Amino acid sequence: MKLYEFATSGNCYKIRLALGNLGKSYTREAVSRDGGTKTPDFLKLSPTGVVPVLEIAPGKLVTESAAILAYLGKGTPMLPEDPYEHAQVIRWLSFEQERVLSSIAGARFIRKMLNIPKEREAEFKAKQEAGYKALKIMDAHLAKNRFFAGDRYTIADVALYGYTHLAGEDGAGMDLKPYPNVVAWLERVKAQPGHVTLMQ
Amino acid sequence: MKLYEFATSGNCYKIRLALGNLGKSYTREAVSRDGGTKTPDFLKLSPTGVVPVLEIAPGKLVTESAAILAYLGKGTPMLPEDPYEHAQVIRWLSFEQERVLSSIAGARFIRKMLNIPKEREAEFKAKQEAGYKALKIMDAHLAKNRFFAGDRYTIADVALYGYTHLAGEDGAGMDLKPYPNVVAWLERVKAQPGHVTLMQ
Repeated sequence: MKLYEFATSGNCYKIRLALGNLGKSYTREAVSRDGGTKTPDFLKLSPTGVVPVLEIAPGKLVTESAAILAYLGKGTPMLPEDPYEHAQVIRWLSFEQERVLSSIAGARFIRKMLNIPKEREAEFKAKQEAGYKALKIMDAHLAKNRFFAGDRYTIADVALYGYTHLAGEDGAGMDLKPYPNVVAWLERVKAQPGHVTLMQ
Repeated sequence: MKLYEFATSGNCYKIRLALGNLGKSYTREAVSRDGGTKTPDFLKLSPTGVVPVLEIAPGKLVTESAAILAYLGKGTPMLPEDPYEHAQVIRWLSFEQERVLSSIAGARFIRKMLNIPKEREAEFKAKQEAGYKALKIMDAHLAKNRFFAGDRYTIADVALYGYTHLAGEDGAGMDLKPYPNVVAWLERVKAQPGHVTLMQ
């Protein structure tokens, strides 16, 4: 398998994290952040012009991080077969996409990649606020559950870890202390076999 | 099973469409659009305060439309077991959430529920434009495929039909003529066994 990626993208990191946990081998192909997803060749791989893209066989591609995680998880304990537990995984994948990507990931981008330009300060604050709302919902869930779906580590945890572990000082600049259950869950994710870090 | 819903919500309609296609019986419980999702009782059912919610057994709930569709589809031809095809379903569920819900559904809401107030005209136009971009991607896919995943009718088609069939004059006010493959696909969805309409 070959992973097309941006080196510091949380969305691409999610895939490497799942691949690490599952003990799968793969090669990495860096795509330039400076227009690399807009070239005709890349748009053949990914019509919507986004990374990550996983090539699972020559010319056979899976795009969009949630879909790639589902592909990798299918048939493993990281994507439960029980219909209710499977639905909980899908629920938290949706939640991540709707509530975390737009907030925590967006705030991190404005802070770390753009250094919070003056004209985006209000947007940055709004994204942090939306991020705190997401953390509150996650913290309440984790007060009663060790993981997000089916009481075990699944691709939902992988997806949520991708940007939640970048919410603090070295990312979106948010304060995680009021969310102790999230902090404890971050540690449980780190302790999973085959864990890799963003910059690994 | 009991479905908690807003009567004219496209997100709730998706669930009724899947239930119809699968020939499942259920009861409907209307939730008031005027604060009905913010009451303490409802927040016990749906901590994020959103409909639809499907009660699958007394006290056992599935929330978020993508998760409910996955629950209903699991174990049926509407959610393929093949890892690649399953991943394609997840991909298009993500696409719907990211590119259709915010655009076509948002434009319909501003036009049909709010009658396009002057101060939201620019936002309305922007949502229509984003909707056209989504339709273009869908049309290109449907030029080569009868359905969105695995060349058969799945919950991905149900999810995308929910708001795409409301993109025209009686909804978001968009012109579907430049997207003939989308128009033909809408007809294929309507022809599925057990099809129900929004107001049914």
